[in-house]
Amino acid sequence: MALKMYDLCGQEPERRFSPYCWLVKLVAAHKQLPLETTPLPFTDKASIAFADWKQLPVLTDGDTTVVDSWQIIQHLEAQYPAHPVAGSADAMGQAMLIKLCIEFNVMGPLLRSVILDIHDHLAPADAAYFRETREARFGATLEDLQGGRESHRVALYGALAPFRVTLKRQAWLSGGSVGLADLLLFASFMWARSVSDFQLLNADDPVYAWRDALFTQCGALTTDSVGYEFSDAGYSV
Amino acid sequence: MALKMYDLCGQEPERRFSPYCWLVKLVAAHKQLPLETTPLPFTDKASIAFADWKQLPVLTDGDTTVVDSWQIIQHLEAQYPAHPVAGSADAMGQAMLIKLCIEFNVMGPLLRSVILDIHDHLAPADAAYFRETREARFGATLEDLQGGRESHRVALYGALAPFRVTLKRQAWLSGGSVGLADLLLFASFMWARSVSDFQLLNADDPVYAWRDALFTQCGALTTDSVGYEFSDAGYSV
Repeated sequence: MALKMYDLCGQEPERRFSPYCWLVKLVAAHKQLPLETTPLPFTDKASIAFADWKQLPVLTDGDTTVVDSWQIIQHLEAQYPAHPVAGSADAMGQAMLIKLCIEFNVMGPLLRSVILDIHDHLAPADAAYFRETREARFGATLEDLQGGRESHRVALYGALAPFRVTLKRQAWLSGGSVGLADLLLFASFMWARSVSDFQLLNADDPVYAWRDALFTQCGALTTDSVGYEFSDAGYSV
Repeated sequence: MALKMYDLCGQEPERRFSPYCWLVKLVAAHKQLPLETTPLPFTDKASIAFADWKQLPVLTDGDTTVVDSWQIIQHLEAQYPAHPVAGSADAMGQAMLIKLCIEFNVMGPLLRSVILDIHDHLAPADAAYFRETREARFGATLEDLQGGRESHRVALYGALAPFRVTLKRQAWLSGGSVGLADLLLFASFMWARSVSDFQLLNADDPVYAWRDALFTQCGALTTDSVGYEFSDAGYSV
């Protein structure tokens, strides 16, 4: 077994910011699988042309190539069933719904809060590509988008309500122990942290304590990664 | 074993409209457990005083009394493990998050769409209680709330996006077979159907086909229940 993944990076090769790449790394760590990563900037499509795919992450497992973070998770869970991230077929099915709840409701305000910070951590060619594609998608400049970050933080606070209340009722989003629901949301916070010092959560938010606990629990993968501090902002939403 | 549940009813004893009672009935049916229900109107708190609780559902299982739909589901799953609604501990943990995503995002626009219809199906004492408590909660009349139902339908369409896309990728919200995630959302549609003919979904929505399939699959419990048709509205959001 030799698991290798191409991992999206900023101008510094060790600044890894893709939430989808983070998800795969977190899942591999949960499963105690060694995973070797190769940093790749946005505009280097040639290095992954062998996969007939243009987005990261791309995983190779020996002679097998797997693209798309969700397919990679399915591959890892099927091939390496020890330390599952989903304890049953319906847990994996539900995780798809939770993934989409995060993508539709949480990632939007989160991205808008740090979108200029992402840009500012990219190599010049990547930065130009990122600005062009994102400004076209949102119909606004990166500066204007991130300029509204105080309101995005309020929107994020609202979007996190179901997660917040869940964490008042049980230790983890997956229940009594860490599972895929936790890793799905946490990957988004690792994304933000990798490029931005903007404080997304207040210290009295149960999501804040959960994020800190998971950051510590994941060990060197997260604690040694290049990024900013998760620290107390002291504001109130 | 004798499972009995007090079930919220309208002016007609057979019109059962509580989404939380529906959830327990759907879970019991999924688990192939016979469940005897006793209709109870909103304002009859005396009949459930023995449970030291003021809301339905209330379950009795022989000499044991269990209140709160979530606690009742945990009881049923623990005591009668055959035909589980959650295949693992993390599936049950994730279901709490999904339940809260539905309560925070879906149930609001759904309730506002049918809130006057609920009122109009209640016995006089219940109707007065319902109007007073709900108008205080929302700061608006039931007529004004339901009067905005076209915009509530648009909000509902948006809130259902993660569910819709999940159903484009897999047969059920719980994956390859029906599970608790499906029953959680479906209970809300059974609630609406019991009191209102307002068309919440368009026929080309994947959620519409899913709802129909589940309605049929649940058999007599749903098909024989008092309510309105789930039928094609022919509008577009």
